[in-house]
Amino acid sequence: MPLLGETVSASPRFEYLFHPRSIAVVGVSTDFSRVGPGRMYVEALLGSGFKGKIYPVGRSGGQVFDLRVYPALKDIPGSVDYVISAIPASETPRLVKDCAAKGVKTVHMFTAGFGEIAAKNGKKLEDEVASLARRSGIRLIGPNCMGIFCPDTGLSFELSLPRRSGSIGFVSQSGGNAIQAVREAQTKNLYFSKIISYGNAADLDECDFLDYLTDDPGTKIITAYIEGFEDGERFKNVIRRAARAKPLVVYKGGTSAGGRRAASSHTGAIAGSEIVWESFLKQVGAVQVYSLDEVLDMAVLFNYLTPPKGKAVGIIGIGGGNSVLAADACAREGLTAPLLPSAIRRRLEAIYSSEAGGSFRNPVDMYFAKFNLAHETVRAVADSPGIDLIIVHMTIGWSPKNDVDLAKKHVELLTGICGEVKKPVVVALRPFGPAKYTDATADAEAALFEAGFPVFFSVASAARAINRYVDYYQRRKRSR
Amino acid sequence: MPLLGETVSASPRFEYLFHPRSIAVVGVSTDFSRVGPGRMYVEALLGSGFKGKIYPVGRSGGQVFDLRVYPALKDIPGSVDYVISAIPASETPRLVKDCAAKGVKTVHMFTAGFGEIAAKNGKKLEDEVASLARRSGIRLIGPNCMGIFCPDTGLSFELSLPRRSGSIGFVSQSGGNAIQAVREAQTKNLYFSKIISYGNAADLDECDFLDYLTDDPGTKIITAYIEGFEDGERFKNVIRRAARAKPLVVYKGGTSAGGRRAASSHTGAIAGSEIVWESFLKQVGAVQVYSLDEVLDMAVLFNYLTPPKGKAVGIIGIGGGNSVLAADACAREGLTAPLLPSAIRRRLEAIYSSEAGGSFRNPVDMYFAKFNLAHETVRAVADSPGIDLIIVHMTIGWSPKNDVDLAKKHVELLTGICGEVKKPVVVALRPFGPAKYTDATADAEAALFEAGFPVFFSVASAARAINRYVDYYQRRKRSR
Repeated sequence: MPLLGETVSASPRFEYLFHPRSIAVVGVSTDFSRVGPGRMYVEALLGSGFKGKIYPVGRSGGQVFDLRVYPALKDIPGSVDYVISAIPASETPRLVKDCAAKGVKTVHMFTAGFGEIAAKNGKKLEDEVASLARRSGIRLIGPNCMGIFCPDTGLSFELSLPRRSGSIGFVSQSGGNAIQAVREAQTKNLYFSKIISYGNAADLDECDFLDYLTDDPGTKIITAYIEGFEDGERFKNVIRRAARAKPLVVYKGGTSAGGRRAASSHTGAIAGSEIVWESFLKQVGAVQVYSLDEVLDMAVLFNYLTPPKGKAVGIIGIGGGNSVLAADACAREGLTAPLLPSAIRRRLEAIYSSEAGGSFRNPVDMYFAKFNLAHETVRAVADSPGIDLIIVHMTIGWSPKNDVDLAKKHVELLTGICGEVKKPVVVALRPFGPAKYTDATADAEAALFEAGFPVFFSVASAARAINRYVDYYQRRKRSR
Repeated sequence: MPLLGETVSASPRFEYLFHPRSIAVVGVSTDFSRVGPGRMYVEALLGSGFKGKIYPVGRSGGQVFDLRVYPALKDIPGSVDYVISAIPASETPRLVKDCAAKGVKTVHMFTAGFGEIAAKNGKKLEDEVASLARRSGIRLIGPNCMGIFCPDTGLSFELSLPRRSGSIGFVSQSGGNAIQAVREAQTKNLYFSKIISYGNAADLDECDFLDYLTDDPGTKIITAYIEGFEDGERFKNVIRRAARAKPLVVYKGGTSAGGRRAASSHTGAIAGSEIVWESFLKQVGAVQVYSLDEVLDMAVLFNYLTPPKGKAVGIIGIGGGNSVLAADACAREGLTAPLLPSAIRRRLEAIYSSEAGGSFRNPVDMYFAKFNLAHETVRAVADSPGIDLIIVHMTIGWSPKNDVDLAKKHVELLTGICGEVKKPVVVALRPFGPAKYTDATADAEAALFEAGFPVFFSVASAARAINRYVDYYQRRKRSR
């Protein structure tokens, strides 16, 4: 919930949320035989290279990871900027009072059991804690959330997340989705500037964080997973401003009856209906998507691909059946595959020294044994005046003898043309069957991303993302 | 193309196609430094345990895989039932004449360069070969195709394909799609009775093979990838009869302009428009799908799942965000997730010894640390009178410390309840991030399929397939 009367951007103020000099994690148990979220946070901060002071706090005292565990917040010798709460909900009002006494600026409440539970006292407790914080000038993140991930300063909520920083900001009402996104993005050579999992949003909410990312120079692409919001007018203004400033990809959760029920159990959110969101997001120029995979597919395009001028795609791959399927999938997702001009077809026929012209009309079938011609094929299709972009589709696992090597060779040839071809090139790459092809595909994917190609799981998912991507730039052009 | 006047089912006659006593592969080169499709077929037959005689034929003579290579068909001492042609198109009329002289019954033409090429002489040559075969009483498969895969008799077109036989028949105009399907199906513990890749269909066509599978007692589920057909009325009758007899899953290729262009380059097929197919297939009770993955997803359900009585799904998984997404995905794909009755909610609350009732309303959030309750959770939800089926969703790769073990534990618990739960249970299982989670997921998937659970890549793909599956049985019930 915003502070009363707060409708303008407040992002400069919020910079400090991401740069605490000292963090106390309250609720750290030294009993390693039990799952301990407090200990997990201490470990994550240590592992992520947080450079400030880390103070574990727990009744038992003792040590964790060679750090002294303080019995209470007040026992910490230095000042504390930021507190992570991993204690039971009933003890949090007392904690907020202690934080006020200690001069803490930010409290992140991992603690759950507030407005998201059915019992009425949950919401009451949440209001009490928020009100206590407000009166003490403390800003709350959460409760019931994973908090902040900011690789630059070593703020993290999971030991295994990459320490590398990137250009994607992610405002995620769900911590689980945030973690999944980071892990999956890593395989696409995509990294995050800041992620905020904000849960019940008792104080700081999606609007505050979207506003922050809108003004954050380190964030080039804003992505958001949102289950609900409090103040419709403010939310619309914030979304509008964000979409004007940067590519904004929104995944709205809780669009179905079951989803709304889950959202209210999850973060206490009251989710709007899908139709209203669709038209609103379209109107302001945000990209709406319908799964976490689609969030990342859009991030891949915004990160890797020069915007194509239109939706006319040249489709290149191996196999007659595959070519049919690729063309059909493109059409279903809103792209067109125009006939290549005769000059280009003749050039392709010459490359393949073939009398047959049938496979070079678009889609282009490279044939199984002609992988060494991928290079020239892509260049020829890119030279077609009517083609806006190229999709190269590859299936790994077709032939047991050649496929892993073939994939490597393909990838070498493709990475070799990067920068030479003037049209945007996208790769659809997937394995079939046994695990070794999955592994070979992962290697090929990594090499292609490294070389700067956007890679997708299927032609259909590539085409769906490209359709939205071209729409995005065409709308921006019109609205200028 | 059918023989003139042939409109009734001819399947008993076609049994012999799948049971040759001897096969000659014509066009076998002993030069191992070059790709040799003829040699590949010999190797595939040997590797697949074909029990009849295998005669390689090639001008060079010599030996391959310890088999004598005969210079010509006429040099083979014994009789030859079946010939696989891997020679250039221009030499095939001569081959058909040689086959007639040798008393060959079936010629499978792997050879391409006929009606699918742009040059007019391609179609002319195809007609000539078909007419020569017809006059000699020889039946042609192809040209331009992979031919027959029949594990029972060791007929195969790829060395690495499984030798195990199953209950799925697949009529695939594309050989590449056929190979991909077999490899992918293997990871789902699904196997094929017969696959026919029939290419240009100069003689035997999709109708002949669909008719055969309709009457084949070894085939319980018919799947088809079709790019085009010759005789619309006959085709409709064949499809109608097949759909009445067995579950029939049809993937129509060439529904877009680019796809039609690719189809005509691929197999010379003339593809119809999508709309006509959709209404026709719906009317006759066939299941139309839009990708190879969806073909297999339907095969998984027909093979593994007792048909649910309706579309009301109980959704069980870990994570608040995941629960929201799962419910939304189900709704978008046509399923409903009704509120669980209060008695069941109380039972779940008791299982989790929790005061909070919010996460047990449907979707049910099992919480991260409570995986040992999966068993009882599934049973409780299954006991809800308003629930027709259950989707359990699992994400592997959430936590680096516990996830692989957690997945194993989950799988053990789930496989433990197989047979105990009275409602159909489906699992959506996917990895996030690094390859080790992909491997752990593959292991979990294999164990679940082995135990008899249908497993899907995502809640969305599971829900889409289930929606079609329930529709299929409801239509059948109404039409009775």
